[in-house]
Amino acid sequence: MILDKIHGPDDIKKLSIDELKQLSEELRKYIIDVVTKTGGHLASSLGVVELTIALLKVFSPPEDEIVWDVGHQAYSYKILTDRKDRFPTLRQYKGISGFPSIKESPYDAFGAGHSSISISSALGIKVAKRLKGEKGKVIAVIGDGALTAGEAYEGLNNAGQLKEDLIVILNDNRMSISPNIGAMANYLIRVTTDEWLRKTKGHFEKVVKKIFGEHIYKRMKRFEDLIVKGLFPPGMLFEELGFRYIGPVDGHNLETLIPVIENVSKMKGPTLVHVLTKKGKGYKPAEERPDKFHGVPKKKISVSVEKPVPKWTSVFSDALIELAEKDERIVAITAAMPSGTGLDKFQKKFPGRYFDVGIAEQHAVTFGAGLAKKGLRPVVAIYSTFLQRAYDQIIHDVALQELPVIFAIDRGGIVGEDGATHHGVFDLSYLRIVPNIIVSAPKDENELRNLLYTALKSNIPFAIRYPRGAATGVEIEKEFKEILIGSWEVLKEGKDIAVIASGWEVSQALEAAKELEKRGLSVTVVNARFIKPIDEVLLTDIAKRHKFIVTIEENTVKGGLGGAVDEFLSSWYDGKVYNIGIPDMFIEHGDQMLLRRKLGLTGKEIADKILNINSSFLKLF
Amino acid sequence: MILDKIHGPDDIKKLSIDELKQLSEELRKYIIDVVTKTGGHLASSLGVVELTIALLKVFSPPEDEIVWDVGHQAYSYKILTDRKDRFPTLRQYKGISGFPSIKESPYDAFGAGHSSISISSALGIKVAKRLKGEKGKVIAVIGDGALTAGEAYEGLNNAGQLKEDLIVILNDNRMSISPNIGAMANYLIRVTTDEWLRKTKGHFEKVVKKIFGEHIYKRMKRFEDLIVKGLFPPGMLFEELGFRYIGPVDGHNLETLIPVIENVSKMKGPTLVHVLTKKGKGYKPAEERPDKFHGVPKKKISVSVEKPVPKWTSVFSDALIELAEKDERIVAITAAMPSGTGLDKFQKKFPGRYFDVGIAEQHAVTFGAGLAKKGLRPVVAIYSTFLQRAYDQIIHDVALQELPVIFAIDRGGIVGEDGATHHGVFDLSYLRIVPNIIVSAPKDENELRNLLYTALKSNIPFAIRYPRGAATGVEIEKEFKEILIGSWEVLKEGKDIAVIASGWEVSQALEAAKELEKRGLSVTVVNARFIKPIDEVLLTDIAKRHKFIVTIEENTVKGGLGGAVDEFLSSWYDGKVYNIGIPDMFIEHGDQMLLRRKLGLTGKEIADKILNINSSFLKLF
Repeated sequence: MILDKIHGPDDIKKLSIDELKQLSEELRKYIIDVVTKTGGHLASSLGVVELTIALLKVFSPPEDEIVWDVGHQAYSYKILTDRKDRFPTLRQYKGISGFPSIKESPYDAFGAGHSSISISSALGIKVAKRLKGEKGKVIAVIGDGALTAGEAYEGLNNAGQLKEDLIVILNDNRMSISPNIGAMANYLIRVTTDEWLRKTKGHFEKVVKKIFGEHIYKRMKRFEDLIVKGLFPPGMLFEELGFRYIGPVDGHNLETLIPVIENVSKMKGPTLVHVLTKKGKGYKPAEERPDKFHGVPKKKISVSVEKPVPKWTSVFSDALIELAEKDERIVAITAAMPSGTGLDKFQKKFPGRYFDVGIAEQHAVTFGAGLAKKGLRPVVAIYSTFLQRAYDQIIHDVALQELPVIFAIDRGGIVGEDGATHHGVFDLSYLRIVPNIIVSAPKDENELRNLLYTALKSNIPFAIRYPRGAATGVEIEKEFKEILIGSWEVLKEGKDIAVIASGWEVSQALEAAKELEKRGLSVTVVNARFIKPIDEVLLTDIAKRHKFIVTIEENTVKGGLGGAVDEFLSSWYDGKVYNIGIPDMFIEHGDQMLLRRKLGLTGKEIADKILNINSSFLKLF
Repeated sequence: MILDKIHGPDDIKKLSIDELKQLSEELRKYIIDVVTKTGGHLASSLGVVELTIALLKVFSPPEDEIVWDVGHQAYSYKILTDRKDRFPTLRQYKGISGFPSIKESPYDAFGAGHSSISISSALGIKVAKRLKGEKGKVIAVIGDGALTAGEAYEGLNNAGQLKEDLIVILNDNRMSISPNIGAMANYLIRVTTDEWLRKTKGHFEKVVKKIFGEHIYKRMKRFEDLIVKGLFPPGMLFEELGFRYIGPVDGHNLETLIPVIENVSKMKGPTLVHVLTKKGKGYKPAEERPDKFHGVPKKKISVSVEKPVPKWTSVFSDALIELAEKDERIVAITAAMPSGTGLDKFQKKFPGRYFDVGIAEQHAVTFGAGLAKKGLRPVVAIYSTFLQRAYDQIIHDVALQELPVIFAIDRGGIVGEDGATHHGVFDLSYLRIVPNIIVSAPKDENELRNLLYTALKSNIPFAIRYPRGAATGVEIEKEFKEILIGSWEVLKEGKDIAVIASGWEVSQALEAAKELEKRGLSVTVVNARFIKPIDEVLLTDIAKRHKFIVTIEENTVKGGLGGAVDEFLSSWYDGKVYNIGIPDMFIEHGDQMLLRRKLGLTGKEIADKILNINSSFLKLF
């Protein structure tokens, strides 16, 4: 195996074209072998095998610095830069990350996870290298999907201005996770297809005929192709933004790819190389359904269950469709995540009321605000971690104007293998401090349905946050019920301790209560389904009857539900409050339940923690 | 006066061209008269007088909906849509807002304040109108400066895809607040100048000569202009994004402007009209220095003082320059606010180490992260309210990777007349919940200097937040001193109450202490210069010695310094904590000190509040 001998770019530089081709086959096979076992982002990584080899044949990281946008396509890069042996630990607890990470390897020039930051960060790296007189090229590899996001454009715009020697590789596979959206995507398709040539030639014909007449046009006709290609270089849009455009180039043909990149490596100024790749290349199932194989789950031993527990995502999606059948005001918005958010089902039912705006969270939220201003009921479904991109829009466009946008925040809490860049653990805190917005989290399927129903009945900005993965498995009630906004519910009455939990943690609080009762303690459990506003009446009552309150949330322990309770009680409560949540640090990747246990957010661990606090210094019960 | 008779678009429709010209003169004079008294955004509003009249001549709001980007150029629009009489109350407490506001008038289709949201919101409004079968056009008016921001591009990209009948008016005055930046700006200049024609003709010549030879080229030469203009319509970049491009049009000539807009109003699909205007038009001082007259301050009765108190902004800027002279690693980044952030002075000293990236806060932060990754010390100077745009970048690109980017957060707290969209009152809360970042606020000029010095000595992400306006007036110490990160300081020792304050509120806490001491109370005052991490040792000591703690911050009362103190004490403190801050609501515009007083954030008001809490229910002292 050639692959076994590769530990870095130097080893690749020694290989002949034939050996490189063999290497790409071995690499592809190795990725498929490992990722179908460990789970991970298969299709994107398979698409850039040759591109990665070509980059490492020409460039020499870490002196040359390659920034991978999003980063889930960097598996080949990781394997070829001395991480082959650790690759089978991919995305596992204490294993290597599914994304580039500057803490993992000096070969990773900049971390990633969220999209569209590569041009900005690479430009920063390049400017710093110049100022420090440091050698080496800087290359950003960005997908066509990531080009939809505003920050990519901001980066291009600034790079075009600064005229640094920055190389941007546009890895164009016509997909983000699902097929791409937006005028830029159409533009890229035109650039690389006959449609572009046809349109341009039509234009040429019209103009020349108009000026010179039929006669001259006919004489020029046989040169038409040459003229058109000469006058309208494809990629003019990038040229207008100050980039030299090279391409399109076949991203799977090393014979052309390597010389092109070699030439580019010698060019001055900002250069964009347009490379065409196929997502899932070399693995039939992934080539055919790249959306399905974008991420593949870890292989699991199948356990037969009487009735499968639905995912939070589908509970949301089914409820939304049910409600939308009776309420024409409902429209749905996703930022390039139709299947991840479950809105693909909504699209099938209501294509005219569904909007995929591409990777563009800022626009998604303001666009929703515009729809809401006109009396529609937009439901913006976004993962918690990506909603951070639209924070100003939530404040400035939605909350300030009190527009009834509904935020369906999926992947709230610990997400698992995607790790630090993807955990949605700040949302309760950053949303709670915004005036005029309702922040809620359901304890189970029915509460999710009813919160959505309540949000639609209300006329204010409303966020509903739920986790990744399987819901609780309760029987789903057909009827929707409105929930009094701000109301909590007491699930269990006790005397010694009151445990106030939100979202999925309610189930864990109930488990913890059972454990604690085995030790002779009497526990009250409260479902804090609203994080903002909190139920001040109920909380006052609870506080008056309990000397010890514990708050639990799958959110940073700073500023969320715990903070809200502390702030409300601090000026008058005589008892003590203990806040349980995610510690104030970034949490690594690993199995979702494993991480929750390690963080002490599961039933037994919560019980242990409470007993421990008490025995060590509180002595309240 | 014609102006007196105008109450809405219907009145304008009746006027002849000559009357409209007279109206524009009257309008311009009225704006200058009022704004030089009240203060406000003079130059932008003067630039669009004719454009506004033309829009109201053709369109009929509120049925047609006009969305003004940023909105500080909408003064003419406000005056012409039935707000002339209230215009002299502009930006004053309880007066009309300096920005469009849906709560102020049905003519304001969507609120604004922050830039680059108009295309997204207008697109939402347009889609909603179509779905509801509602009549009326939708128009977004956006400046060339605002086009630098990613969200504007996201909006264009989505609008080009959806093919709705959306009209975008590009108000091109070659300026944001300072001259524009970026490749897009260069592109717009090329489109509208001979430079563009020259470049394009050069390209044409080369191609034609290469294909047909010298001979044919000469025959074609006299048609060159026509061919070039025919083949390369200006604005091709917008055409490529799916927009029909019209322009450029003189934005001060009603005779051409009105028919162009009339034609455009009948067009289908997304259309972009490129209008050239002059910022400050008709007011010489503003035409000559549009940056200076972007915003003009309220006229003040000048009081002679022995020594003028410097602004926080210049204290920062001077300190940065001083430090940068000795530390080559320091580079500075602004997002189109060189003079507002004080970095204009830095630019003069160190042009090669200064980066104005345009209105592009997301890019500014990630670009900074790239610079920091390579060992430089980027100082990103951004207003608090605009930093909300880069929240995800702070988390994902800076904090997660622990890159030592320094955030100089200007305009923290109440800013005054700019109002709800501009107050920087969430930053302490949204930053405190992010792991790995230091959040600080100086009590005075020397502490600002020393915090900056400390940030540079440290090797971690570091935010320093300071208010708008004049600093405290202390003598500036020449020597920089490092401050122990996370350390607070006791400014006054007392027994009954401990007041813990941050930033500018420290001075108010000292005032409040004086008032309270007049009533016989003994007050401890603590300067909480770090909001994260807090000084747990000192706070523990304070808590042990005081039964009543008050926290004060010019930040929302949710989740900031108060929240941090509550969270730390809730599990063991036997006393009570009362949090003072900005209530959980959006705060309107008005004089900065007036608002602070109304909100109870000034010395005497704080003292009253504390006495009142105590007498009403605490009875602690």
